[in-house]
Amino acid sequence: MKQVYNFNAGPCILPRVAVEKTAQALLDLNGSGMSLIEISHRSKDFEAINSECIALWKELLSIPDGYHVLFLGGGASLQFCMLPYNLLGAKAAYVESGSWAKKAIKEAKLFGEVAVIASSSDKNYSYYPAIADIPRDADYLHITTNNTIYGTELHGSIDSPVPLVADMSSDIMSRPIDVSKYGVIYGGAQKNVGPAGVAFVIVKEALLGKVKRAIPTMLDYRTHIAEKSLFNTPPVFAVYAMCETLKWIKAQGGLQAIAALNRKKADTLYGYLDNESKMFVGTADKASRSLMNICFVMTEQYKDKEEEFLNVAKAAGMVGIKGHRSVGGFRASTYNALPLSGVQALVECMREFEKKF
Amino acid sequence: MKQVYNFNAGPCILPRVAVEKTAQALLDLNGSGMSLIEISHRSKDFEAINSECIALWKELLSIPDGYHVLFLGGGASLQFCMLPYNLLGAKAAYVESGSWAKKAIKEAKLFGEVAVIASSSDKNYSYYPAIADIPRDADYLHITTNNTIYGTELHGSIDSPVPLVADMSSDIMSRPIDVSKYGVIYGGAQKNVGPAGVAFVIVKEALLGKVKRAIPTMLDYRTHIAEKSLFNTPPVFAVYAMCETLKWIKAQGGLQAIAALNRKKADTLYGYLDNESKMFVGTADKASRSLMNICFVMTEQYKDKEEEFLNVAKAAGMVGIKGHRSVGGFRASTYNALPLSGVQALVECMREFEKKF
Repeated sequence: MKQVYNFNAGPCILPRVAVEKTAQALLDLNGSGMSLIEISHRSKDFEAINSECIALWKELLSIPDGYHVLFLGGGASLQFCMLPYNLLGAKAAYVESGSWAKKAIKEAKLFGEVAVIASSSDKNYSYYPAIADIPRDADYLHITTNNTIYGTELHGSIDSPVPLVADMSSDIMSRPIDVSKYGVIYGGAQKNVGPAGVAFVIVKEALLGKVKRAIPTMLDYRTHIAEKSLFNTPPVFAVYAMCETLKWIKAQGGLQAIAALNRKKADTLYGYLDNESKMFVGTADKASRSLMNICFVMTEQYKDKEEEFLNVAKAAGMVGIKGHRSVGGFRASTYNALPLSGVQALVECMREFEKKF
Repeated sequence: MKQVYNFNAGPCILPRVAVEKTAQALLDLNGSGMSLIEISHRSKDFEAINSECIALWKELLSIPDGYHVLFLGGGASLQFCMLPYNLLGAKAAYVESGSWAKKAIKEAKLFGEVAVIASSSDKNYSYYPAIADIPRDADYLHITTNNTIYGTELHGSIDSPVPLVADMSSDIMSRPIDVSKYGVIYGGAQKNVGPAGVAFVIVKEALLGKVKRAIPTMLDYRTHIAEKSLFNTPPVFAVYAMCETLKWIKAQGGLQAIAALNRKKADTLYGYLDNESKMFVGTADKASRSLMNICFVMTEQYKDKEEEFLNVAKAAGMVGIKGHRSVGGFRASTYNALPLSGVQALVECMREFEKKF
């Protein structure tokens, strides 16, 4: 198999053992003579997978009682409307920290008043805006903890007087979090926890049932809580692969160990950018730097070399390092399953390139 | 690998070649050094898969110009509300032919007046109700062409004076259809066209944009038309497996050939029930019999032998033949990928069992 270093922003690199176990189940699940995708979602086999996956979520994140873990179709983008459908009575507060936050804000406005209480749009979202003066009359405060496109991440925690809702699509399971500080945590699985095709929602049950509007059955969190995400046919494959991914996280030592590795990977690349390189420079404000998506560009002097470096990196097996068009330059996503050796190889490639000039 | 005959009602048996090609892609897509679930949905690799899948849908069903094929998350159950969101201005007509139709009706009522113009609830949905007097002031008429639970199917076609909308979750691609007679055709993929985790929607663009309500972005068909189902991260795996399943249908000779095989399978089992068996009897009205889900029970005299037969059949490798609790008895789902030999094995098993008494 060709050796590549996968820096894709999502879908992205997954643990090889999870991929291989899922491929085996795809050929023959537990010796059943059937593929994982040929079994009934009402079978004991799938119920065991679904229950194990829920249990791993609860264990790895130490999710307290009173919360439910849901696995839903439609991606985090569907949650942008599902969330206000369930929680926005009159007014909600949102933090505009990037493109995905903007999309969430747009959908919430269909359901009520939206107060954007902080934004970093003035500097192309290159920093995480300070969160203060959370309105006490808001039904919730919505944040996006990691901004994949701009390479910023919220560090430290927020004590919100209203329920805190977080889109954690791109940093869930990258470090321990205190779930009790949140009302809802949601995201697409396709970064740290599995393949595209399933969204996770961790929801505090006590927050539900307060809005007056009629909610379509499939968009009502209570439907999926009551049926343990088996109200309708779930994305069986994606749940299986997610379960295998979580098993791998657990086998690494859980989120403390994962967080230490993620810190090491980020330090390796940021360290090179800050302390050594004269050619490459990080784009995000240092205090807001993401540990998942590391964005950098070439300095003015070398700006015309970006295309050349992309080609060199590609030839060296680096995949997905072209930056998003909103920022330009480069982006190395260093999700859980990317080994430290991948980041080291990228830095070595940058160093070699820099030497030529 | 253990030999089984998979009669699951869905998720269900899929073509082995499609399963194996997908498993290979899961390990290494096109020699890229990455799994199918590790590539970007914006990559050329995935765009080629998505485009090929759309093209196969259009080719196999001879979909005319003016229609779009969408691949969405959330299953057919999400379409129950997405459809009226987009199409129900004041009033819609629905045919109540089973449980799934009832669920669709329930969601539509959140969006406007619903006229249930035909129902077979009086006889536990054991026949397909006659459709007449379609109200001309309805925005659309909604039908469920095959009722998985009750084993009934709509035969013949409907000439509707208003746009015809069909949930074809369980008989899509089982036979040729005249798409031009429909405004929207939708369903979950997990019967004849792929794994769970993706819904298909074939929609006539001219019908959209007429309702006055604001539609959340993800629930607006126009969003997905504009982005070729790539507005947000699609269920990459499910689309790939669907594409491989459609390639297999094409390799069988397309829908004419598939329909002939499905007819032969159904005739084999219905023929045994009608002409030979004194122990087993079909539950659906003969004129409404489904070619996809064949429901039968034991006659009064042998009613106490159902459990015993289930065990015998299970020991002979028959999977998923227990009937839905709403009907009882047995259900053999004979979707596209089930070979004729599977039905013959089941009939032989029934025949042998009957001989014992």
